[in-house]
Amino acid sequence: MSNPASAFQQRLNDVATATEAALMGYLDQNPLPGEIARPVRLMEAMRYSATGGKRLRPFLVIESAALFGVPQAASLPVGAAFECVHCYSLIHDDLPAMDNDAMRRGRPTSHVKFGEATAILSGDSLLTLAFGLIADMAGGTEDSIRVALIGLLARSSGMGGMAGGQMLDHEAEGRFTADGKPLRLSLEEIERLQAMKTGALLAAACEAGAIMGKASESERKALTNYARALGLAFQIADDLLDAEGDAASLGKAAAKDAKLGKATLVSLLGVEPARKRLGALVAEAVASLDSFGERGAVLAECARFVAERKN
Amino acid sequence: MSNPASAFQQRLNDVATATEAALMGYLDQNPLPGEIARPVRLMEAMRYSATGGKRLRPFLVIESAALFGVPQAASLPVGAAFECVHCYSLIHDDLPAMDNDAMRRGRPTSHVKFGEATAILSGDSLLTLAFGLIADMAGGTEDSIRVALIGLLARSSGMGGMAGGQMLDHEAEGRFTADGKPLRLSLEEIERLQAMKTGALLAAACEAGAIMGKASESERKALTNYARALGLAFQIADDLLDAEGDAASLGKAAAKDAKLGKATLVSLLGVEPARKRLGALVAEAVASLDSFGERGAVLAECARFVAERKN
Repeated sequence: MSNPASAFQQRLNDVATATEAALMGYLDQNPLPGEIARPVRLMEAMRYSATGGKRLRPFLVIESAALFGVPQAASLPVGAAFECVHCYSLIHDDLPAMDNDAMRRGRPTSHVKFGEATAILSGDSLLTLAFGLIADMAGGTEDSIRVALIGLLARSSGMGGMAGGQMLDHEAEGRFTADGKPLRLSLEEIERLQAMKTGALLAAACEAGAIMGKASESERKALTNYARALGLAFQIADDLLDAEGDAASLGKAAAKDAKLGKATLVSLLGVEPARKRLGALVAEAVASLDSFGERGAVLAECARFVAERKN
Repeated sequence: MSNPASAFQQRLNDVATATEAALMGYLDQNPLPGEIARPVRLMEAMRYSATGGKRLRPFLVIESAALFGVPQAASLPVGAAFECVHCYSLIHDDLPAMDNDAMRRGRPTSHVKFGEATAILSGDSLLTLAFGLIADMAGGTEDSIRVALIGLLARSSGMGGMAGGQMLDHEAEGRFTADGKPLRLSLEEIERLQAMKTGALLAAACEAGAIMGKASESERKALTNYARALGLAFQIADDLLDAEGDAASLGKAAAKDAKLGKATLVSLLGVEPARKRLGALVAEAVASLDSFGERGAVLAECARFVAERKN
């Protein structure tokens, strides 16, 4: 691999293509035994929201598992399950009662295109499908591993993880001090919110790879450290993009955080210190992978990508 | 058991008490490993919606499993998981964009009490918790059984089951013929919708018991037949209650179906033929349990209860 950045891009593209194909395969097939019928409009909305995106979570699942020699054919359904959870969270976060976003990935959000009821149900169905995918996936993945993956996915995406983080995010909006100024979250509160809302699922994606690969305790810890730094870096990069980006390149509204009076690390620290912290987190993520040697190169490059991405 | 009806009521009450205690236990405990924090308001909303109700699905899980000697300590977490799915579906179905209901179980619905965002997230979190409960439950339930239960729960509650049924129900509202009359569903369409929206999860609850109990193929089939008839009976009883009940005894709005122009079996067949069909379904459910002999008495009584209940 003479150029790690382009090797990474190639892998990211390959995983994105494979994930899209897998998801469409699940959604296009006939009802499974135990299913009665699949309503056309619901499936259309699920396909719509399961299309596109960087597929970062499947990438982390598949590349973490690959560190331990797990073939992509075995880890892809798990990656697809994580992506289902991510896609459901975007649909529900965009709803009028939540962030009320009209654009996502350069297209109308689900509720704008299909109406709120269909959007809610398609999110519910993608979340449900995620767990079904892991339980029902073909191939020889041991039942004990499936159970561990499902528990991990539930804990990282539910009340104590992603959904809980969205709750904190929602609560943080529109809080005011006694004299009418917006009440800002503290640095610690912001970091916890972000660790839950974004970090938990990213970290779980890496941990899923470790579970599938039967990683040792120290290998698992190395991956968890990587994932934690990656998650924080991801969120700072997101906040910087929101503060400095434009809607055309983001594919969604920009400067939303400021408009909503949302406290972010960027608004609290300022742009330059945030950028510095981002650099430190990337270095930390990369260093966490040291023990994997050359095998860790693609994940290391992923940390750089996350910090430098433009959308 | 000299009085099967009172023996049944006793069991239903016992299961309801145990389910409530189990659910509150899960929701009250400290964050699990892999969870970061549990937001207070989210947990409050989850507890609110996980309180009360007949607990029919846990009852079916536990009593079906008991047919095969599975102790309640082992089946209760699975019953609680099914109840989480049921509770989440009620929260989301009640939302303004869905059925827009203000009352449920004699209390304000979740979005009325906590706001829409919290209601959506508490539903999402209960659904996620359901799968986590089965994956993480204590006790010696084999991993292969956990995986089978999770697959079953996902298929029965997702796009091809409960959520799909709610989609069909939503689509059926407000459809009109070319000359402006409400477009009614056919008998076949109504039965499919109801089999998905209500029947699938009830049937899966019985099948979960069969899976835990390692039932033979014929035992499983007997339970599935019972559950199918029970599910249809449940829905006709529900429609009759809606047509004839009053809000005070229902704990929610009455005569909603007619107001919404919703086609039900009752509106299509008329009250008396629907009542007759209800009786036939109860007889069918009871007959399906023949091969279990005296052991099936409590489930048989449950079918009678479902047909005769007043709320």
